[in-house]
Amino acid sequence: MRARISDVAAAAGVSVTTVSLVMNGVESRISDETSQRVRDAARAVGYAPSSLARGLRTQRTRTVGLISDQIATTPFAGRMLAGAQDVARDHGHLVFLVNTDSDETIEQEAIRALTAHQVDAMIYATMWHRTVTPPAGLRPDTVFLDCRPDGGGFRSTVPDDREGGASAVRELVAAGHRRIAYLDTVDTLPIASSLRLEGYLAVLAEAGIDADPALHVRGATSAQGGREATERLLDLGADRPTAIFCFNDRMAVGAYTAAHRRGLDIPRDVSIIGYDDQQLIAAEQDPPLTTIALPHYEMGRWAMEAALGVRADGDTDAAYLMECPVIRRDSVGPPPAEVG
Amino acid sequence: MRARISDVAAAAGVSVTTVSLVMNGVESRISDETSQRVRDAARAVGYAPSSLARGLRTQRTRTVGLISDQIATTPFAGRMLAGAQDVARDHGHLVFLVNTDSDETIEQEAIRALTAHQVDAMIYATMWHRTVTPPAGLRPDTVFLDCRPDGGGFRSTVPDDREGGASAVRELVAAGHRRIAYLDTVDTLPIASSLRLEGYLAVLAEAGIDADPALHVRGATSAQGGREATERLLDLGADRPTAIFCFNDRMAVGAYTAAHRRGLDIPRDVSIIGYDDQQLIAAEQDPPLTTIALPHYEMGRWAMEAALGVRADGDTDAAYLMECPVIRRDSVGPPPAEVG
Repeated sequence: MRARISDVAAAAGVSVTTVSLVMNGVESRISDETSQRVRDAARAVGYAPSSLARGLRTQRTRTVGLISDQIATTPFAGRMLAGAQDVARDHGHLVFLVNTDSDETIEQEAIRALTAHQVDAMIYATMWHRTVTPPAGLRPDTVFLDCRPDGGGFRSTVPDDREGGASAVRELVAAGHRRIAYLDTVDTLPIASSLRLEGYLAVLAEAGIDADPALHVRGATSAQGGREATERLLDLGADRPTAIFCFNDRMAVGAYTAAHRRGLDIPRDVSIIGYDDQQLIAAEQDPPLTTIALPHYEMGRWAMEAALGVRADGDTDAAYLMECPVIRRDSVGPPPAEVG
Repeated sequence: MRARISDVAAAAGVSVTTVSLVMNGVESRISDETSQRVRDAARAVGYAPSSLARGLRTQRTRTVGLISDQIATTPFAGRMLAGAQDVARDHGHLVFLVNTDSDETIEQEAIRALTAHQVDAMIYATMWHRTVTPPAGLRPDTVFLDCRPDGGGFRSTVPDDREGGASAVRELVAAGHRRIAYLDTVDTLPIASSLRLEGYLAVLAEAGIDADPALHVRGATSAQGGREATERLLDLGADRPTAIFCFNDRMAVGAYTAAHRRGLDIPRDVSIIGYDDQQLIAAEQDPPLTTIALPHYEMGRWAMEAALGVRADGDTDAAYLMECPVIRRDSVGPPPAEVG
C-alpha cells in the first residue's frame, strides 16, 4: 500500500499541515529541525510527494469556488479568506469568491456558475459560527467553513467557542479574580454566545466559585451595548465584578468607555478580556486588549486543505473544532485590594 | 435616434443611476414621487427600457470578474465590493471575485481564468487610492476602482482626496479654529497623503491663516503612530494646535489616547477630525469621531455601473472623482478660550 501524508505526519510526530508545507516547499514558519525530521520520515515510510502533484495535475481548472455570505464586504472575518487563499496558492489553485449577502437566489446562481466553470472544489463559508441549511446543488465534497451543516453530511470546521470561553475565564481566575462577569450578547442567534457561557460556568465551577446570576448580563453586540451593560455591572457597587469577560472585542471597547468614564483604570481597578482579536481594534485600545483569538486564518487554511484533499482528517459527522488561543496584552491584572 | 438612459435622466432631473434603478424595478431607496417622474420622463422622450434588457440578454455568462489586491481579506474597503455587488445583482449579474494579494502571477492567472469563463465585464480594484500599472491581458473596457491606471486608457474612479482634505479643514475653520495641525502619514506611497495636504494648505490660505510648518507632523499609519505624533504637537505648549486633522481614523484613535492621557477633553480642549469613516472604529470612539468618509460603496457602484454599460460618464483620460462627505459626530467643537 502506498504511504500517505498522514503516515509521514505520524512518523515525524507533526501535523498533516506541517508535512504538506514541507513537501510543498512552504517552510517559512517551520523550523529547520522539523523540516529535516519530516523529510527523514517521508523517506523512511516511502512517501512520494509526487503523488500529490500528480493528483493535482489531473484536475481540470485549478480553481476553487468559495461561496460566502458577506465575509468579503464586512470588516470582520477576512482572515479566513486569506488562509484559504494562501493554501490554494501553495497548491497552484485560484480562488473564485462569490459573496452572496445571504441571498438564496444569488447562492443558487453562484453554485450553478461555479459548477459550469468546473471548479475543482467548493467551500461554503459564513461570517460567524452558526448552523446552516446546505443549499441544493452543492457538491457532496464541499467543505463548510465557520458553520455547521444542519444534519451533517459535509466536512466542516468551526471555532472551539466553549473551550475559548473557558480559556478567557481561566485567565481571569489565574490572575486572582473571583467576581467575574460575563458580558454576553442579547443576540440569541450566535451559537458562540451559549458555548462561551458554558465555558464560563465550567471554569467558575472548576475554581469553586458560585456563579452569581447578577454577573451574567446582556447587551447589544456593539460598543454602545457593551458600555450600557458594563454600567449596570459597575452600578452593583461593592458587589461589582473585578473582571469582565466580554462576548466580543466591540463590546469590550464599550466596557473600556464605561470604566474610563467612572475614573476606573484598566487593569488596576477592573480587568477586561475580549473575544475575536479583531484586527485594527483589539491591539489598538488603550491599554491594548487581552482577548481570545478567533482562528479565522487557521480555519480558512484547514477548509482549503480539506477541499483540495491535502488533509484527510475531519469527518462529515462532526465539525472540526479549531482552538481559540489567548492573546495576552495589557487589560488583565490582579484584582484591586478593595472595591468601592 | 433612439432615446438613451441619459436623456431620461436629463428630462427627469435625476442621475442615470436613479433611472436605471427605477427602470429595473429596484426602487426601494427612491421616493414614489421621483419614480413617477422618471417613468413620465421615459415615456416623454420615448425611452424603451427593453433596450437595456435586450443588451443584457445578448451577453453570455451574466458574470463579472472583479480582481482586487486584498480588499476581501482586510477589514478596510469591503464596502466597495458591497456597492459593486449590489449593482451587479440589480442587473442580474454574478460577481466572481479574485483576491490576488498583489501577486503578479496570481493576477495573470485570474485574468486568464476569468477570460476563459467569458465574464461579461471586468473591474480592477485596489484597497487604497493609488496609481497602478495595468496588468497585461486586461480587457480594454476594464474599469479601475480606487486606482488610476498609469498612462490612462481605462475608465476609473477614485476618491476626491484633495477636496476631502479641504472639507475637513473647512469644518475646523468654521468651528473657529486657527491653529490647525495636519497629522500626516510618514508613508509617502498613498496619493491621498499629498492630495489631502494640498486641500489643507488651500483652505488655510482661503481663511487667511499662515501655515505653520511645526503643525504639519508625520507618524506611522496606526494608532501608535498617531499617538506619538500627537504627543509632539501637544508638547508645543501654548503653541499647540487647538484642532488636529488626522490622515486617517486609526491615527485619530491614537490622537484620542494622547489627548486623554494628558487629561484633555475632546472636543472641549482639542478638536479632532479623521478620514475614512472606518466601520466599527469611527462611530465607536468616545466621543464618536467626526470624519471624512471614503466613498467606498459609491465608488463600487460607479465602477460596476460603468463596467455593465449602465452609465456612460467617466472617460479614459481622467479618473472620475467621487466626493468624500463630512460625517459630523462629536469630536469637533469651538477652540478653548485659552491653551495652556
